[in-house]
Amino acid sequence: AAMAGAGWARAVRGLLLDVSGVLYDSGADGGVPIAGSAEAVRRIKASGLKLQLCTNETQATRAAFVRKLRAMGFDVSVAQVTAPAPAACHLLRERGLRPHLLVHHDLVPEFAEIDKTNPNCVVLGDAAENFTYANLNEAFRLLIGMEKPVLISLGKGRYYKETDGLKLDVGAYMKALEYACDVQAEVVGKPAKSFFESALAELGVPAEQAIMIGDDIVSDVGGAQRCGMRALQVRTGKYR
Amino acid sequence: AAMAGAGWARAVRGLLLDVSGVLYDSGADGGVPIAGSAEAVRRIKASGLKLQLCTNETQATRAAFVRKLRAMGFDVSVAQVTAPAPAACHLLRERGLRPHLLVHHDLVPEFAEIDKTNPNCVVLGDAAENFTYANLNEAFRLLIGMEKPVLISLGKGRYYKETDGLKLDVGAYMKALEYACDVQAEVVGKPAKSFFESALAELGVPAEQAIMIGDDIVSDVGGAQRCGMRALQVRTGKYR
Repeated sequence: AAMAGAGWARAVRGLLLDVSGVLYDSGADGGVPIAGSAEAVRRIKASGLKLQLCTNETQATRAAFVRKLRAMGFDVSVAQVTAPAPAACHLLRERGLRPHLLVHHDLVPEFAEIDKTNPNCVVLGDAAENFTYANLNEAFRLLIGMEKPVLISLGKGRYYKETDGLKLDVGAYMKALEYACDVQAEVVGKPAKSFFESALAELGVPAEQAIMIGDDIVSDVGGAQRCGMRALQVRTGKYR
Repeated sequence: AAMAGAGWARAVRGLLLDVSGVLYDSGADGGVPIAGSAEAVRRIKASGLKLQLCTNETQATRAAFVRKLRAMGFDVSVAQVTAPAPAACHLLRERGLRPHLLVHHDLVPEFAEIDKTNPNCVVLGDAAENFTYANLNEAFRLLIGMEKPVLISLGKGRYYKETDGLKLDVGAYMKALEYACDVQAEVVGKPAKSFFESALAELGVPAEQAIMIGDDIVSDVGGAQRCGMRALQVRTGKYR
C-alpha cells in the first residue's frame, strides 16, 4: 500500500461510541436518552463517518439492546454493536469451556447454544439483582472447587450511573471473586485489547483513523489508547 | 527486669485460639463443635496455660458468641474473647467517626452507643444475608460520596467453612468496595498487628511466650508471626 502522509493517517473515518453514559443513562425504568445524543448520531451518519457502538452492556441481549435504543430514537443496527457476551461465547467455544453463568437474567439467551453442563469456568457479568449472597457463594464454591479456577468477566468497570443513582459494576464483584479464589479473571469486553480490535474490524477502519468516545477513563479511554486509537472522555454519565 | 535465658524466653505461657474452624464449624444451624476441641480447652486450662480466644467473629455480639460456645461445652468467658467489633468501636470513638454499618444484624447491638447519624465512614463486617445487592450499592454510594472515603473492615478473610459449605468472607466484599471507590480499607481484626497486640495485652503474656493456633494461613498464622508470636495452622476448618 502506498504510504500515506501524516495528515491523511490522522484523519478520522470512524467513531466507536460507548453507550451507557454517552447516548443514554441506564436505569431500571429502561433509561433515558442524554439530551442531544440522538441528533448527534444522526449527524455522524450524515457526515459519512462510520459508526460502531462499543459497549460493555451485559444486561440484555444485543437484539433487545438495539430494540431499546431504536425506541429511544437511535438509528442503529445489531451489526453496529460490539458487546462482551458474543465475544465470550467465541472464547468459550474456542477453549471448550462450559460456563456457570452469574449474569443478568436478560443476558442468558446469548448463551443458549453453549454447553453449560458440569461447568469448568464461571462467566461473570453485571448480574444486578442476581448479585445475591447465595449466587455469589455458589459461583465462589464452583471456582474454588476447580483444579484450576477459570473466571471470565464481561468487563471490569467499577460503577455506572443509573437514573436512580450509581451502581456497583461487574468489576467490583470480579475483584471479590479474584480475592477469594486467589485467581485473576480474564476480562472480555472493554478495556481488553482484543475487544477493541474486534470492534475496529467490524467498523472496517484502522485504529489510527478511529476515535473512541466514552465516559469511563479506564474502560473507554485507556483501553482505546492502548490499541492505538485516540479517545475522548465525555462529561456525561458517571463523569465526576 | 532480669534477663531470662533463651530457653525460658521461648517457654509457652499463653495460647491465642482462633474459634471458627478450630473449636467449631460455624453454620446457619449455630454450628457444631470439632471433635475433641472442648476437651482440649479443658486440658489447656488444667495445665495452667493462659487462654484467649482471638476471633474475627462478627456475626454475633461477644456476649451472644460466648453463650453459644458455653452451650457447646467450651468453658470460656466474655473477657477471654478478643473480637473486631469492640476494637472498631474504640477506633470510631478515638477518631470521631460516625459509621454506616454493613454488618450482620446480630452484631448491630455492639454499636448501640456509637453515633451513627450523618455517616462519615462505612464499617464492613461479615454481613452474610445482609450482603444484598441493594445494601452493597448503598454502602458504595455513601463511600463514593465522601470527600475522603473511610472504609473500616472487620477482618479481611477470603472465605470460611460453614456446616453447609464454604462462604465468602468479609475480605471479598472489602475488595469489591476498595476497587469501586479506589480506596484502601483499614482492617480491624486479624491479621492487624494492633488486634493481636490487644489480645496479648488481655492475655497478659508477651508475644514471645504466646502461640496462636488457627486455620487461616493469612489471618491467623501470618498476623501472629508479624507480632513476634509463634503460630500453628490446624488442619480443620477451611484447611484444604
